[in-house]
Amino acid sequence: MSRLVMKFGGTSVADLERIARVARLVQAEVAAGKQVAVVVSAMAGRTNELVAWTDGSGRAAQGLPESDDEYDTVVASGEQVTCGLLAMALRHIGVRARSWLGWQVPIITDEAHGRARIDDIPPEKLAAALDQGEVAVVAGFQGVTRDGRLTTLGRGGSDTSAVAIAAALDAACDIYTDVDGVYTTDPRIEERARRLARVSYEEMLEMASLGAKVLQTRSVELAMARRVPVRVLSSFVEPGEAGSAGTLVCDEEEIVEKRIVSGVAYSRDEAKITLYGLPDHPGVSARIFGQLAEANVNVDMIVQSHARGQDEANMEFTVGKRDAGRAREIVEKAKAEIGFDDFAVDENVAKVSVIGVGMRSHAGVANTMFKALADKQINIQVISTSEIKISVLIDAAYTELAVRALHAAYGLDRL
Amino acid sequence: MSRLVMKFGGTSVADLERIARVARLVQAEVAAGKQVAVVVSAMAGRTNELVAWTDGSGRAAQGLPESDDEYDTVVASGEQVTCGLLAMALRHIGVRARSWLGWQVPIITDEAHGRARIDDIPPEKLAAALDQGEVAVVAGFQGVTRDGRLTTLGRGGSDTSAVAIAAALDAACDIYTDVDGVYTTDPRIEERARRLARVSYEEMLEMASLGAKVLQTRSVELAMARRVPVRVLSSFVEPGEAGSAGTLVCDEEEIVEKRIVSGVAYSRDEAKITLYGLPDHPGVSARIFGQLAEANVNVDMIVQSHARGQDEANMEFTVGKRDAGRAREIVEKAKAEIGFDDFAVDENVAKVSVIGVGMRSHAGVANTMFKALADKQINIQVISTSEIKISVLIDAAYTELAVRALHAAYGLDRL
Repeated sequence: MSRLVMKFGGTSVADLERIARVARLVQAEVAAGKQVAVVVSAMAGRTNELVAWTDGSGRAAQGLPESDDEYDTVVASGEQVTCGLLAMALRHIGVRARSWLGWQVPIITDEAHGRARIDDIPPEKLAAALDQGEVAVVAGFQGVTRDGRLTTLGRGGSDTSAVAIAAALDAACDIYTDVDGVYTTDPRIEERARRLARVSYEEMLEMASLGAKVLQTRSVELAMARRVPVRVLSSFVEPGEAGSAGTLVCDEEEIVEKRIVSGVAYSRDEAKITLYGLPDHPGVSARIFGQLAEANVNVDMIVQSHARGQDEANMEFTVGKRDAGRAREIVEKAKAEIGFDDFAVDENVAKVSVIGVGMRSHAGVANTMFKALADKQINIQVISTSEIKISVLIDAAYTELAVRALHAAYGLDRL
Repeated sequence: MSRLVMKFGGTSVADLERIARVARLVQAEVAAGKQVAVVVSAMAGRTNELVAWTDGSGRAAQGLPESDDEYDTVVASGEQVTCGLLAMALRHIGVRARSWLGWQVPIITDEAHGRARIDDIPPEKLAAALDQGEVAVVAGFQGVTRDGRLTTLGRGGSDTSAVAIAAALDAACDIYTDVDGVYTTDPRIEERARRLARVSYEEMLEMASLGAKVLQTRSVELAMARRVPVRVLSSFVEPGEAGSAGTLVCDEEEIVEKRIVSGVAYSRDEAKITLYGLPDHPGVSARIFGQLAEANVNVDMIVQSHARGQDEANMEFTVGKRDAGRAREIVEKAKAEIGFDDFAVDENVAKVSVIGVGMRSHAGVANTMFKALADKQINIQVISTSEIKISVLIDAAYTELAVRALHAAYGLDRL
């Protein structure tokens, strides 16, 4: 009998009415002959409330490490409530079910409280429940250390829970969200955005890390590593309606119609830092990026340029907007030490990316991008590429224009 | 080193400010050289919210038994939040602490979900933490079955958790509430009510079951059985202030100044049922009370009277007000079957009781009561007595008058 993990996020279980609706979706899969495990998040808004309480109890003031175990104890209560309520709602409509908290499964994690990673999910207990025809309602986002303390996986961790449980149970994984699948780009910006029927793990991974908020990056990495087929679909679309099939995230081999570019992603969460007049001798970059790495600041795009005929260089790089303040302090300190002329921080930038596995075998993809942007007079500040994506940094004001221009240039509106 | 269990109810941990206050009270005991375990309830109001959600998810509609395990999973999250927050608040002021959920201790209960009884509390883990100088913050009201499912002890169960943990740790137990001790009667009715410095387990048990809401009956039974000294005190009175010593509930032997009567209790949660014209042959009462017992209706006071020269009897008995509807149905059905004339249900009654271990060795206690009530023209409808209490049922309108008259008659205002 085939097994299915169904995952529902906070908005899908935000109140009792929606929980009842989720119960009916689960009932339909059971009726279709599937063995079902359901992974749930906390009711929307609940986690924020719990986090605020922990901050008020001095966690923020103490700094994270000392109290993150108690943070987890408090925050993990959110999913506990939802999974108990969903188990009841299932029984209410005649579906056998019981709740499983992280420690009951157990979902064993490391001890990195607040951002734990799953080490192991012994599948025996859940599998036995499923084999007996009972729906297993599992609390997402949480786990337990080998010492028996509660952990949470960090924001978006419920997706990861679902994929990890699917891997442990050798099941497929349906992720229900408030959108009905993965789109060629953000439909709020480009109304001609199309839902992709299938997308490869690699593409989904790039999309997730480049700003598409459909799936959490770690869950996609895990799905790719364990070859779990993941379907993204909406809990608000009726089965059978347009869009109800969602998007299947799967192995590249399973995608028959290959596209050169599958999607256009964007992110406004970037800040650009420019260093002027850097002395041109070895070790300068190592020093700056070493200090940033020590402060846990991730650097994304980097470009260094030489003014002709001079022995000084300029360097530009981007960091996450929330790290901009810390990066500024580090660069300020490094200025005298290293001896560059000046620096500037620009938070008014956006990163726009095109993603597609077809790039591997097609030339001219970058050229299409540069031409499309040039046609709209959009200046490219920094470029970075990988095997299956090209990202450019531009003035944030042009974000929507760039997204629409690229969507058209690659024919994504004619899929 | 002496050990202390401190228990804080829902109003004492109702918000972050009060939790911080509780942390300071705990800190003071640690500073005084005590090993401290703290037992906490859910934030006031939170349990009601969780219970309402479980009702909305179909628990109420399904009837209790099937979903009570999930009810417990949902409701137990309330204490989980509080104990995490208190552990953080303690660390914030430099007190080493960690939270202990019921399953982590473990507090092992039977499988009667929603009203579980504690079977065992292996003290090793908690004792080891205390011996290392760490405050153990324990979630009250909850436990775990031997199969690893969450249970709750039912309303007021946090008092029972605290006493059971104190018994397991060979500790004293301080129960913090919103009153500063046990009073000779309800101060809202009689302003001359006095706080008792000490009260015996037996008296406290009668007071609790007769309507005084300071301690939950089961917790007193347990304290008496395990000889745990329990102190009732207010979390809102500053240490050193008047009333800060609270009331010690202890063995009768430890009370030097014996009183004949220690307190006057009352309850308006009664309903009186009168059956008229009962046939006077054996087995009639057994039939009615058997049916009530089967329906889980507790009968409290019973009196049967014969009209002179007739072979018919009248019978009066009391049940809890919330059981009155069910009792009415049962009596209605029994009417034809048994063949009595008629019956009446009166919810407009109150039970007023005087309690005191001194009654065992003193005569005339009842007479003082009857005289005091007669002086105020208060008619006694039913009487019941035990070794250390006398209860009378009266018209509810006279409750306050009766309480004040009895309080004065036994000289409780001159303690």
